[in-house]
Amino acid sequence: MKKEYLLTPGPTPLPPQVSLAMAKPIIHHRTPQFQEILKEASAGLKWAFQTANDVFIISASGTGAMEAAVVNLLSCGDAALVVQGGKFGERWTELCKAYGIKAEVVDVEWGKAVSPEEIAKRLKANPQIKAVFATLCETSTGVDNDIQAIAAVVKQTPAVLAVDAISGLGAVDLKTDAWGVDVVVAGSQKGLMLPPGLGFISLSAKAWKLVEESKTGRYYLDLRKAKKALDKNDTPFTSGITLIIALNEALKLMQADGLENIFKRHRVMADATRAAVKALGMELFAPTAASDGVTAAKVPAGLDGEKLVKTMRDTYGVTIAGGQEELKGKVIRIAHMGYIAESDIILGITCLEKVLAQMGYKFNLGAGVKAAEEVFLKG
Amino acid sequence: MKKEYLLTPGPTPLPPQVSLAMAKPIIHHRTPQFQEILKEASAGLKWAFQTANDVFIISASGTGAMEAAVVNLLSCGDAALVVQGGKFGERWTELCKAYGIKAEVVDVEWGKAVSPEEIAKRLKANPQIKAVFATLCETSTGVDNDIQAIAAVVKQTPAVLAVDAISGLGAVDLKTDAWGVDVVVAGSQKGLMLPPGLGFISLSAKAWKLVEESKTGRYYLDLRKAKKALDKNDTPFTSGITLIIALNEALKLMQADGLENIFKRHRVMADATRAAVKALGMELFAPTAASDGVTAAKVPAGLDGEKLVKTMRDTYGVTIAGGQEELKGKVIRIAHMGYIAESDIILGITCLEKVLAQMGYKFNLGAGVKAAEEVFLKG
Repeated sequence: MKKEYLLTPGPTPLPPQVSLAMAKPIIHHRTPQFQEILKEASAGLKWAFQTANDVFIISASGTGAMEAAVVNLLSCGDAALVVQGGKFGERWTELCKAYGIKAEVVDVEWGKAVSPEEIAKRLKANPQIKAVFATLCETSTGVDNDIQAIAAVVKQTPAVLAVDAISGLGAVDLKTDAWGVDVVVAGSQKGLMLPPGLGFISLSAKAWKLVEESKTGRYYLDLRKAKKALDKNDTPFTSGITLIIALNEALKLMQADGLENIFKRHRVMADATRAAVKALGMELFAPTAASDGVTAAKVPAGLDGEKLVKTMRDTYGVTIAGGQEELKGKVIRIAHMGYIAESDIILGITCLEKVLAQMGYKFNLGAGVKAAEEVFLKG
Repeated sequence: MKKEYLLTPGPTPLPPQVSLAMAKPIIHHRTPQFQEILKEASAGLKWAFQTANDVFIISASGTGAMEAAVVNLLSCGDAALVVQGGKFGERWTELCKAYGIKAEVVDVEWGKAVSPEEIAKRLKANPQIKAVFATLCETSTGVDNDIQAIAAVVKQTPAVLAVDAISGLGAVDLKTDAWGVDVVVAGSQKGLMLPPGLGFISLSAKAWKLVEESKTGRYYLDLRKAKKALDKNDTPFTSGITLIIALNEALKLMQADGLENIFKRHRVMADATRAAVKALGMELFAPTAASDGVTAAKVPAGLDGEKLVKTMRDTYGVTIAGGQEELKGKVIRIAHMGYIAESDIILGITCLEKVLAQMGYKFNLGAGVKAAEEVFLKG
């Protein structure tokens, strides 16, 4: 009888419409029937990405789509600038290194957002830089970077801006075309409310010039193949049929809400979560750039953060995330991204309170949930 | 009220247990709960692959797993031998070319199996060859290659043998360890009865030596990362959670049957399908090496093969496959792979008879299904 709740920043919970779509009998992908589905998915993705450019669907986790950005844009020996303020920023650096790309790192303190001025300075100092790699929501630290400001800087230079929006897209605003973001990478298992297994990538005309120049070996992730296929309403390799059918269900739900409402819902849930943990006497890990997709809070001194997460999950069925790498045991992360509602935040906070109390932490029981309720009342 | 039947060689139909598993609420992948699931999947895959080596799960279509074989085994300038007798053999060649690997091609006539002697001759003539790439079931032509005989040849040389068993694994026998096949690549959407989206790869100790030597840039498909993660019962990037949970359901069904029974069932269905199309006066495309996973038959002279496939699918709900590339319109392909039973073959053949009759083709109505029944009666 234990009820299970998922408050993690990927995977996120699945709407029943999405789950049920995956239980339907499978259909073949090289049929007019599936072509209709793919057409709908393409249109829906353009809407979600806020772009008029093609959004390509890759059967891979989000990292596969990040790699598609790197190998299609750059060649061995090229220079890139990487914003690195957490585990996922580091992934861009690792990807560049794997392909012999000279990655200059903007080393941002974990828990802070990058300064767009710093990016401007670096680009000025090194005009060889062909691409800037950044992260929308750095899930590992609970930080949202100011992509609009970064794009404003990068678009004045010959470099392209590639944003890892795996975490964030469909939860916080990212005006791909209006802001001039050249490459946007996303994944299925976060704001898009699907299981993991699909990666997405959109490219501007400026980025396509680099794709044509890149000499990096590539096949499965070759976006020239993806473009050729999409122009015929197809994918170059066997499509992730079930997930694409589920994607259309998720996109329908999102379109019924509208992007502005979706972003507002995330903002309110984030405000409530932040208010709740602060009311419990916990400190935000990223007070100046807290993400609207996931809240990272410092584990109170003297408490075992890993035990906190484990007890909430294994004893009470509420799965939140702990810290990764250097933050292991030091932070908890509560996601409010995708198919998560006020009710989920409320029960997540009450469960957090219960376990904190059991672990001997001193606070006013109910203070967290009251703070969240106050935010939700205002809306 | 139109009932839909899928008789295609990937995707193949899904057992209800698999479909329903995908409709369950999602769980997080970095949890002890998912680690148990991954452990079960790893053990089940070793059983299905008939190997004691690790089988790695990659979130990608089968082609992604083929690419993992190429980039992990070889570097730019290395020599490889590719068996090419259809669209999927060609894929190995294309993959090699994309990475600057010198692919020597054994050009096998479409519809024929490769001669193991020819491979022996080529390996003797070019001792630089580091890897031989072959195909278990060449789905495009309906041919099964004699992997046991090929392995017997290759294992006497310093080269490794990598087999694309995307089509075939779980349908026809492939004794990875007993025959000495170094690398086996598979995909989820064929004999393993899942939707597309997972690729699998196993490697022998001989193959791992090449993995350590390879200088090819790689990240998402880097099997060293996969090994490091699997040793901790994890995946290097977000796991394909839903499909892996479904995989365990499929493996349970397969294990309840046993491999010998599974292979026999496929053999009998293949015999029945071959007998049926011959009784209809149609010629097998691959009479000397016909696959037990899929039957390719030549479209009778004067008939429009594409229309035949289209009518069966769009008017009667029975989806079979047509020919690909140079075989477009010239063959039909009826799959008997994965979750396909005698009943599916029977209804596929009756539907084929109906449409052939409507298209004016002269034959004895019922002859095909009678021939199939005769085979099934004998069992």
